[in-house]
Amino acid sequence: MTGRPTLAVVGATGAVGTVMCELLSSRRDVWGEIRLVASERSVGRKVRCRGEELTVGALTAEVFDGVDVAMFDVPDEVSAEWAPVAVDRGAVVVDNSGAFRMDRDVPLVVPEINPEQVRNRPKGIIANGNCTTLAMIVAIAPLHREYGLRELVLASYQAASGAGRTGVDALHGQLGRIAGDRVLGSRPGDVRQAVGEELGPFPAPLALNVVPWAGSFTEGGWSSEEMKIRNESRKILGLPDLKVSATCVRVPVVTGHSVAVHAVFATEVDAESAREALRNAPGVILVDDPAAGEFPMPIDAVGTDPSWVGRIRRALDDPRALDLFVTGDNLRKGAALNTAQIAELLAKELTR
Amino acid sequence: MTGRPTLAVVGATGAVGTVMCELLSSRRDVWGEIRLVASERSVGRKVRCRGEELTVGALTAEVFDGVDVAMFDVPDEVSAEWAPVAVDRGAVVVDNSGAFRMDRDVPLVVPEINPEQVRNRPKGIIANGNCTTLAMIVAIAPLHREYGLRELVLASYQAASGAGRTGVDALHGQLGRIAGDRVLGSRPGDVRQAVGEELGPFPAPLALNVVPWAGSFTEGGWSSEEMKIRNESRKILGLPDLKVSATCVRVPVVTGHSVAVHAVFATEVDAESAREALRNAPGVILVDDPAAGEFPMPIDAVGTDPSWVGRIRRALDDPRALDLFVTGDNLRKGAALNTAQIAELLAKELTR
Repeated sequence: MTGRPTLAVVGATGAVGTVMCELLSSRRDVWGEIRLVASERSVGRKVRCRGEELTVGALTAEVFDGVDVAMFDVPDEVSAEWAPVAVDRGAVVVDNSGAFRMDRDVPLVVPEINPEQVRNRPKGIIANGNCTTLAMIVAIAPLHREYGLRELVLASYQAASGAGRTGVDALHGQLGRIAGDRVLGSRPGDVRQAVGEELGPFPAPLALNVVPWAGSFTEGGWSSEEMKIRNESRKILGLPDLKVSATCVRVPVVTGHSVAVHAVFATEVDAESAREALRNAPGVILVDDPAAGEFPMPIDAVGTDPSWVGRIRRALDDPRALDLFVTGDNLRKGAALNTAQIAELLAKELTR
Repeated sequence: MTGRPTLAVVGATGAVGTVMCELLSSRRDVWGEIRLVASERSVGRKVRCRGEELTVGALTAEVFDGVDVAMFDVPDEVSAEWAPVAVDRGAVVVDNSGAFRMDRDVPLVVPEINPEQVRNRPKGIIANGNCTTLAMIVAIAPLHREYGLRELVLASYQAASGAGRTGVDALHGQLGRIAGDRVLGSRPGDVRQAVGEELGPFPAPLALNVVPWAGSFTEGGWSSEEMKIRNESRKILGLPDLKVSATCVRVPVVTGHSVAVHAVFATEVDAESAREALRNAPGVILVDDPAAGEFPMPIDAVGTDPSWVGRIRRALDDPRALDLFVTGDNLRKGAALNTAQIAELLAKELTR
């Protein structure tokens, strides 16, 4: 191959697609042509990307002709239908939906953890993990290498933008309705009444509330989001028997997923050596000085690339367990950034 | 003793004291005289309580003369100084501060769990638990009785009012400043800038954020709040070796503390029998039908007495573990209600 590869971004106008265009603008020397593709209602829209004004095209088979790498950030069913079409037209697909993540013939890649897996793609498709898994796993992998991971108990604090642009709009709309009433949140049902029907994609008001549910219903009372974290953590780390219990909770944050992690290892752990392992780990920033007010929080992690990790403590009653807190930008490392990083591994391979 | 006992409420004008006056108004046949006591700046204020207009008095030794039961909801150091004074003047003290909770000669009572402990009070003082412990422990005790508790891994979602009236004021003030700006929360530091100095009692903005820190710094990186949950759970359940790891996080909710619980037991568990145990437990309401949108949330639990429990699942990788989610009103069961319930046990004893 001569010259720089051609990239298609499918789902270019959503919450993740918008961040993707920002990221591409800061990585100008990777791609040749960039084609933006979206659903019917966005076709023809002009979007600035990498300093150029690009016109959004329709999702057709032909749009993939000549494309080397196609990134997909669309609903599961759209990826399931269109990713194979893009592959047929000669593209390698990096897919951010849940459609292929657990497919044995599709690698689930986090470049800091298992970059070699990009070459193992019999279907021409590489999957990107769920946003909550990605924010957390980048901080867990270095600890696994150090101590040998056996079990994860997780509780998430997930932002509205994990449910897309409509999630953010609903949260801001709700906040607009409640602001100014300084008694709201003190009586049963008062927030429900103030928020009214403006729930967006959530099953209950998010403003002044936490909602212990994300995704769809699966067996045994687990949410699909909780199952994704378990299954994807196992696949990314190559630990098919890893014990995982996750509780996924939506919180009134715009962007930035946080996870409280209780991790049990094969060997004894030590908070200071854990900090050392994380200090040197790629894609991680250590913020762990609570006495000085330093711990990971969404309002600081939003708009940044790394997973912020802190509150590292050895469990008081188990010398093999660590408790810690992780926050990552769910639209960046949790979605667009990891997709871009996988695509860049492909770009290197293609231009070699 | 003849007639109904005399009650003093010390700290009557704070967030918890205000809820206490509400509760006393709905329990008109328990107490004779009620005296409201508060700090200097509230002395002389008129407060409606049980249909009467009461004048707030000053905290002096004499105010406890003739008092049978004195409830304290004041800072640790005020309790440490004044609770023994009230005892000297003949009152039994029910204290909601952290000053006496871990004292071997002071019982830590949750009436649904260990009511018999009220009689075991060599110092004349009975302690009320921390608000996060109380919300959670009422739902855990029935499961402990069923299966034998061995370990708790907890992550909290704690409301602003857990930090008192100034916490609620700060959250509402912050929400007023950010409302109307529908981009806020999408850029690093933008919420910090919008909120400015209005942090109230919190180490960082609470609006559009989660803050993984509550209380003061203790050894090993643990917060005082996390240590309280561990120590108090052990004492209330009578399990001095219970393994507990807690991560305490403040969220932008006015009132209603939630806890994601991973509980490991001595025997195998079953989600349906766990639900049955909770359905029949005092002080608990079971809301566990996620497919129908039913799970515990602060906006529903606020202003109510019970602990709301739901999302009950048997761990997929450990037949002895349950995952669940609990929400309780931190000013009611977490503070005023449990105090009132303890005081009522005393009132019964005194009028017997």
